[in-house]
Amino acid sequence: MIVVMKSGSPEAEINRISEELMGWGLTPEKIIGQHKVVIGLVGETAALDPLQIQEISPWIEQVLRVELPYKRASRQYRHGEASEVVVGTPDGPVVFGEHHPLVVVAGPCSVENEEMIVETAQRVKAAGAKFLRGGAYKPRTSPYAFQGHGESALELLAKARQVSGLGIITEVMDAAELDKIAEVADVVQVGARNMQNFSLLKKVGAQPKPVLLKRGMAATIEDWLMAAEYILAAGNPNVILCERGIRTFDRQYTRNTLDLSVVPVLRKLTHLPIMIDPSHGTGWSEFVPSMAMAAIAAGSDSLMIEVHPNPPKALSDGPQSLTPDRFDNLMQELAVIGKAVGRWQQPAVALAQK
Amino acid sequence: MIVVMKSGSPEAEINRISEELMGWGLTPEKIIGQHKVVIGLVGETAALDPLQIQEISPWIEQVLRVELPYKRASRQYRHGEASEVVVGTPDGPVVFGEHHPLVVVAGPCSVENEEMIVETAQRVKAAGAKFLRGGAYKPRTSPYAFQGHGESALELLAKARQVSGLGIITEVMDAAELDKIAEVADVVQVGARNMQNFSLLKKVGAQPKPVLLKRGMAATIEDWLMAAEYILAAGNPNVILCERGIRTFDRQYTRNTLDLSVVPVLRKLTHLPIMIDPSHGTGWSEFVPSMAMAAIAAGSDSLMIEVHPNPPKALSDGPQSLTPDRFDNLMQELAVIGKAVGRWQQPAVALAQK
Amino acid sequence: MIVVMKSGSPEAEINRISEELMGWGLTPEKIIGQHKVVIGLVGETAALDPLQIQEISPWIEQVLRVELPYKRASRQYRHGEASEVVVGTPDGPVVFGEHHPLVVVAGPCSVENEEMIVETAQRVKAAGAKFLRGGAYKPRTSPYAFQGHGESALELLAKARQVSGLGIITEVMDAAELDKIAEVADVVQVGARNMQNFSLLKKVGAQPKPVLLKRGMAATIEDWLMAAEYILAAGNPNVILCERGIRTFDRQYTRNTLDLSVVPVLRKLTHLPIMIDPSHGTGWSEFVPSMAMAAIAAGSDSLMIEVHPNPPKALSDGPQSLTPDRFDNLMQELAVIGKAVGRWQQPAVALAQK
Amino acid sequence: MIVVMKSGSPEAEINRISEELMGWGLTPEKIIGQHKVVIGLVGETAALDPLQIQEISPWIEQVLRVELPYKRASRQYRHGEASEVVVGTPDGPVVFGEHHPLVVVAGPCSVENEEMIVETAQRVKAAGAKFLRGGAYKPRTSPYAFQGHGESALELLAKARQVSGLGIITEVMDAAELDKIAEVADVVQVGARNMQNFSLLKKVGAQPKPVLLKRGMAATIEDWLMAAEYILAAGNPNVILCERGIRTFDRQYTRNTLDLSVVPVLRKLTHLPIMIDPSHGTGWSEFVPSMAMAAIAAGSDSLMIEVHPNPPKALSDGPQSLTPDRFDNLMQELAVIGKAVGRWQQPAVALAQK
Repeated sequence: MIVVMKSGSPEAEINRISEELMGWGLTPEKIIGQHKVVIGLVGETAALDPLQIQEISPWIEQVLRVELPYKRASRQYRHGEASEVVVGTPDGPVVFGEHHPLVVVAGPCSVENEEMIVETAQRVKAAGAKFLRGGAYKPRTSPYAFQGHGESALELLAKARQVSGLGIITEVMDAAELDKIAEVADVVQVGARNMQNFSLLKKVGAQPKPVLLKRGMAATIEDWLMAAEYILAAGNPNVILCERGIRTFDRQYTRNTLDLSVVPVLRKLTHLPIMIDPSHGTGWSEFVPSMAMAAIAAGSDSLMIEVHPNPPKALSDGPQSLTPDRFDNLMQELAVIGKAVGRWQQPAVALAQK
Repeated sequence: MIVVMKSGSPEAEINRISEELMGWGLTPEKIIGQHKVVIGLVGETAALDPLQIQEISPWIEQVLRVELPYKRASRQYRHGEASEVVVGTPDGPVVFGEHHPLVVVAGPCSVENEEMIVETAQRVKAAGAKFLRGGAYKPRTSPYAFQGHGESALELLAKARQVSGLGIITEVMDAAELDKIAEVADVVQVGARNMQNFSLLKKVGAQPKPVLLKRGMAATIEDWLMAAEYILAAGNPNVILCERGIRTFDRQYTRNTLDLSVVPVLRKLTHLPIMIDPSHGTGWSEFVPSMAMAAIAAGSDSLMIEVHPNPPKALSDGPQSLTPDRFDNLMQELAVIGKAVGRWQQPAVALAQK
Repeated sequence: MIVVMKSGSPEAEINRISEELMGWGLTPEKIIGQHKVVIGLVGETAALDPLQIQEISPWIEQVLRVELPYKRASRQYRHGEASEVVVGTPDGPVVFGEHHPLVVVAGPCSVENEEMIVETAQRVKAAGAKFLRGGAYKPRTSPYAFQGHGESALELLAKARQVSGLGIITEVMDAAELDKIAEVADVVQVGARNMQNFSLLKKVGAQPKPVLLKRGMAATIEDWLMAAEYILAAGNPNVILCERGIRTFDRQYTRNTLDLSVVPVLRKLTHLPIMIDPSHGTGWSEFVPSMAMAAIAAGSDSLMIEVHPNPPKALSDGPQSLTPDRFDNLMQELAVIGKAVGRWQQPAVALAQK
Repeated sequence: MIVVMKSGSPEAEINRISEELMGWGLTPEKIIGQHKVVIGLVGETAALDPLQIQEISPWIEQVLRVELPYKRASRQYRHGEASEVVVGTPDGPVVFGEHHPLVVVAGPCSVENEEMIVETAQRVKAAGAKFLRGGAYKPRTSPYAFQGHGESALELLAKARQVSGLGIITEVMDAAELDKIAEVADVVQVGARNMQNFSLLKKVGAQPKPVLLKRGMAATIEDWLMAAEYILAAGNPNVILCERGIRTFDRQYTRNTLDLSVVPVLRKLTHLPIMIDPSHGTGWSEFVPSMAMAAIAAGSDSLMIEVHPNPPKALSDGPQSLTPDRFDNLMQELAVIGKAVGRWQQPAVALAQK
């Protein structure tokens, strides 16, 4: 923490401030410049609020934090190494991480009935996905819109998991439902609208299933890493960060603005694995392939793509869902980029045949 | 709902779409223009998602909603009349509404100890506030920051209520704590970060205490009214909307951008009472008076202002808190504007003396 | 300027950096903390780019500027005093400034014909305005929209000026037209879209007429003050800053988001007078009165309001224009607030009669 | 254009509106729905402002445009075909377009001296770039920052062009300098800050050199296409659109938010070629490679990358510039993606050798 004094600050005031800060257990060190005096604060400053120090004296011009406010989420916390999030699925463990093949998650926005979820699971599995996404509880802007089938949808996800061998990723909206969800889900998702629902973050952090943390619509990267820090601090080290588009001034042609630059930025700041969701990121299925390609080239560890057997009839998010056929094609297009950057998994069968 | 067809759409396709929409229970009516065909949809379209209709055919260029997506929150729902939210307090009912005097809510960000909360309550009461704000459960960006004293703080609020006669407004972050909070609070607050925590909205909507709904950092006015609609649809008609600043590209000198234009906009769209929070809106106590004055002149029904007996020592949000002395002065400044616009309550004593 | 080194930076590197910075004419002073080393830079750092220093070494974590990047625009430049911009008009000098009565500027978006501009001038004069606004050259999003009547409109403004006694404020879009415009205009306006047209800023700074500088749609307050600095540095000390709404994520009900908090923020940072334009700020005439009232209460020095004799027939910006009758009423409403805060000019007649 | 009437609109008023609109040369067609009446307007509506129609009657709820406001820039204008912008360079014509190899533009932010610009030109040419970028006139936030060497820098660009065989792209900030710039430049750049400097747009549209139009910081895609429309309408059909990052709420780790989704969106809306500038888009050289890879995978037609022989000594934008060595490596990385998507030019030599 660095305290910058206004020009002309009286020496007595600078001394008074230094003493007060010593009382807080800090070691202040003065630099006397030509126009200004600056006080460097040495000690445990991570829990301090710069704004609080500001209030000590009207002669303080600015208080600047030079340490990161997150710790467990920082890349330094693992000495620069990426972490791996290993998720058990019926077909064996799948690893999310910088040095592993791209993991594709696919499926419908919401679980509508057994036939559609099982069929979708089988189709996306065949195309190369490792996880099935599908909402049992749906956050909807309108109270009059379909809110998800709830508990019965969880059963259908369990069925689809068993039949397809895919892992399951589904969203928790209410801590009261967490146990039921965690019974079925291999990864528990916290949605964008709940990214700063700190009660929920503490609770998903206190249970053992890996957590997919979507970025809030207006969350800075620092806000997002602080939300991850809540989960990590509560004891759960398995967090995957998912970018799904941010809210900007232009929403005419895309629902959100997909911020792909998070890939290199997060890579620098954190050890946690990164997922990109181009379906929510753009809101329109026709823009998904281009952004999915870009995400792989940018270095994403994972992709989440909405697939629905009949998008026009989908109970939610139809316009951003691909058909299974379109998803098959996309996977072939993605393979081209994935292989070019060395992040595409060789099919097991092909390997066995060699 | 209006469906705009692409130029050159085949007549057969237009007929097919019309038939499909009839199957949805709607009455389509065609207008054949020079370049385009447009289909007007008559019937119950409120629950429909325009995007879903879009998906029926690639020949559809746009689907435009012409009805409001919110109903109970709309001004029309009350035939143009403003609603009144009447809150019982120890000193009698206080009314929030367009045709009533401005209601001032004041108090610290968080309840720190008995002395500070009682002292603050007495000071803000003396200055003319009707409600005490104070957090027992605090949403904090960092898991390492002070999270509020929880249940014990609720007891202190109850004490301050009893001593001062003020009503209490405090935030609920977790539905599990709602009952305890509603026992003490006269108004239950849903914070900006939980504005789209739909599970929580349903629960505060299903209990009887009035709800203060803060606008989310990146919530459009429509999102905000839809969040209010969740509460209204769950059966609670007593919702107050509180603007507390939105997130924009400029955060160097203010923490948020206080959007005062919500006052005339909400007045037009909804019957619900409006509160402005210039403390969170600007983030700095020195900017609070100017924005509080502006809020009254703009026509706000209520103000929420942070007051702390010793801001530099506050456990949270010190920089945006006024001292009780500064708050006394501010109330006098506000009275000037409040009287000018006819929204200032005559002090009870003065009335009695007449 | 403060250079924060990464933890574990080698001493040799810190010394190398210090030497390099001495070569730039700066005096580096080290503070050695528990985890970090910080280098304070003393000397002429105003022209330096923090990012450039960052590049000296990969061991540099952050470079923080502690000086303001603007100088002539800063409040300190005038030792905390507000500046006054005195504008000569046919009816005598009008002063824009913190310690002077509110100045109201009114008129149509664009000058359409002699009758309308003269009539509008007379009406707004009668209601209490001191300046007539009206565009001869109009920045329009579409090349197919009305672009202003240009030179002939300047003649009509000169006529309206003569007839009404009002000062004239009109926009310059092209430096080639500056001379002609400055012949007629008492204040030359630089529009929001040209706020960072640095060539134009230099040219309006090199001529003698006062300049009204509108804030760019996505300009931070610092960007805006730096744009003012261009004009001041070119030799013209008479700059008025005009807020006209910024671009945010919500544009459904208002065209822009009027950022009234600039009033207290600018008051703190700069000595320059402040104007608020609620017409562009909201985009709808029905929201103008509420925001104009708020602007005065917030402490604005001036207001710019669009008035058109027949808004539905206006060639541009009709929906945000008031009729002259509505403007008359508004001036009476504004007087109530203006008087309450002591910023309303006593009518000359009234004074004479005393 | 579609006019939506408020519920309960009197029939007489609907008829009056219809008649008024007929007076404007339009053919109104009514649809009478259950709750609402909607009037479809047939005729030449492109030049009409929806807001103007809105003003005809207080009974009008909304006016919705269903036609695009841009014409020459639209994909339909070329019947769905992409356009090609062919630029003559000393080494022969280079084509920008959807069905052509990726064109790489590289070079420093500003031209500093002969040695640096010639050296950079030779290095980027050797690595595969087709154009040299370099500023003679620089838009800088501060009037005290280096503003470019102006005319003498143009001579150096001419020299570098001759020596290297590269085409030249350089920015025009002032119409007065356009002729001199167009003498040297093969492509004239309009910068982000001047995207809505309509005077300048008209002038670059009236000269024959191709124009690179950067997206404004807060320009919607529609604003951007309308700016292109100004150039096209003035007679110059050769416009390239360059995304360079937009301004959002998060600017802590990147200077702007690079909006890569413009690639598929523009592809759908317009026939014009697309360029991505990851250097300004992110502001930091370390993030450039990842975003450059992503841009190619997304389908961009061109890339603009800042390269400086000694970034820490650059007079502007050092932190976002790559060294020539780093650029060499990057071109090899880009080739991998470029070949995978079939957009990489085979080197002439290699082709000759086959």
